[in-house]
Amino acid sequence: MKTLAVVSGGMDSVVMAHLLKSEGHELTLMSFNYGQRHRKELEFAGMAANDLGANHIIVDLSHLTELVSRSSLTNAEIAVPDGHYAEQTMKQTVVPNRNAIMLNIAAGYAVTIGARHIATAVHGGDHYIYPDCRPAFIKTMDAMLTVANEGFIDKDFTILAPFLYADKTFIASEAHRLGVDLSRTWSCYKGGDIHCGSCGTCFERREAIRDAGIPDPTLYEATPEYADPR
Amino acid sequence: MKTLAVVSGGMDSVVMAHLLKSEGHELTLMSFNYGQRHRKELEFAGMAANDLGANHIIVDLSHLTELVSRSSLTNAEIAVPDGHYAEQTMKQTVVPNRNAIMLNIAAGYAVTIGARHIATAVHGGDHYIYPDCRPAFIKTMDAMLTVANEGFIDKDFTILAPFLYADKTFIASEAHRLGVDLSRTWSCYKGGDIHCGSCGTCFERREAIRDAGIPDPTLYEATPEYADPR
Repeated sequence: MKTLAVVSGGMDSVVMAHLLKSEGHELTLMSFNYGQRHRKELEFAGMAANDLGANHIIVDLSHLTELVSRSSLTNAEIAVPDGHYAEQTMKQTVVPNRNAIMLNIAAGYAVTIGARHIATAVHGGDHYIYPDCRPAFIKTMDAMLTVANEGFIDKDFTILAPFLYADKTFIASEAHRLGVDLSRTWSCYKGGDIHCGSCGTCFERREAIRDAGIPDPTLYEATPEYADPR
Repeated sequence: MKTLAVVSGGMDSVVMAHLLKSEGHELTLMSFNYGQRHRKELEFAGMAANDLGANHIIVDLSHLTELVSRSSLTNAEIAVPDGHYAEQTMKQTVVPNRNAIMLNIAAGYAVTIGARHIATAVHGGDHYIYPDCRPAFIKTMDAMLTVANEGFIDKDFTILAPFLYADKTFIASEAHRLGVDLSRTWSCYKGGDIHCGSCGTCFERREAIRDAGIPDPTLYEATPEYADPR
């Protein structure tokens, strides 16, 4: 069956795409360009599409990021906060309602190509901070899409969110089980040549891979702030 | 109160914006550029913003239209069908899931500027063809947005859809009541210097204004296909 997977190039979404492929889904990957800060991720999304033999569609929303940036404190000049995400700093790094925007564009494209599912890598680790990663969001979004596209989509059309109740450590262990090379995923918000190792997303990535008890093939600039048990 | 109104520059959305202003809403207008065919409408949306003393935000989604066009029969080279809309021809002129995409981007921007409402001019005349103009769509979208943005939006945040149960004739009569100059709205899909008078949207516009029993200040190239009672 055809499935349109929203893939950023990060660990969560790339592992999800491999999981879906292993379950027999015929994948198209869709990525979103929110401006310069995310270009590095897009390269890794393209690599994932190559690895999976999937089409890769990039939707350019950098214009939207600019609009939002001009109207709020959210802009590219704000330094990326280091260490573990606190609520306030996470709010600075996102376009409001972003997951809903991405999933609705994905749904529109899914109608166009006749896909039966759209897939998102939202996971339990983000529930506390992001309301649009919670089960209630996926449930109401699914209901809305069914109503909004009645007669245009398959009656079995659904959103897939295989990590909705899992955490990032589970995702790392799934990567290991599926043989996904995590060095072919990108998490760092700073967009250097290699992962910085100390920004919020690098911190979470390292922690998840460490807690899964699997080797971390990622090259990092900085040593971890936590004591590495290996 | 601050309200973000999605305004295309057409009759329905411009009349809605005037209605909201008359009710005391502090308006920002948001328009979407879906590519060349809609540029003319955008000019009229800008005129409406001027007339209303409102900010005007244009979100460029022409890239999305291109993606969808390359993947389906929907593209700018398809001739715009004349006469009253039939189901098939209407399907050709839209990006799937379009209203949901627009309202979600509007909601994201509403969070940014602290607006309490987003407003859409969906109306009863479109219920038959477009599932994303029906009451069930507005209801499920409203529920989804509340869940997706919990903690980021005002708890009273709602979608306004003042014409949800009205038809286009009612909208024309509202234009008359509110003193809206309908020559400052654009309906024609063909984007010429004046309204063609014979495409699907021109046909519906003329019919609604005629049925409302009000003067039609619009300049049309073609005479109407129906017998004009005036």
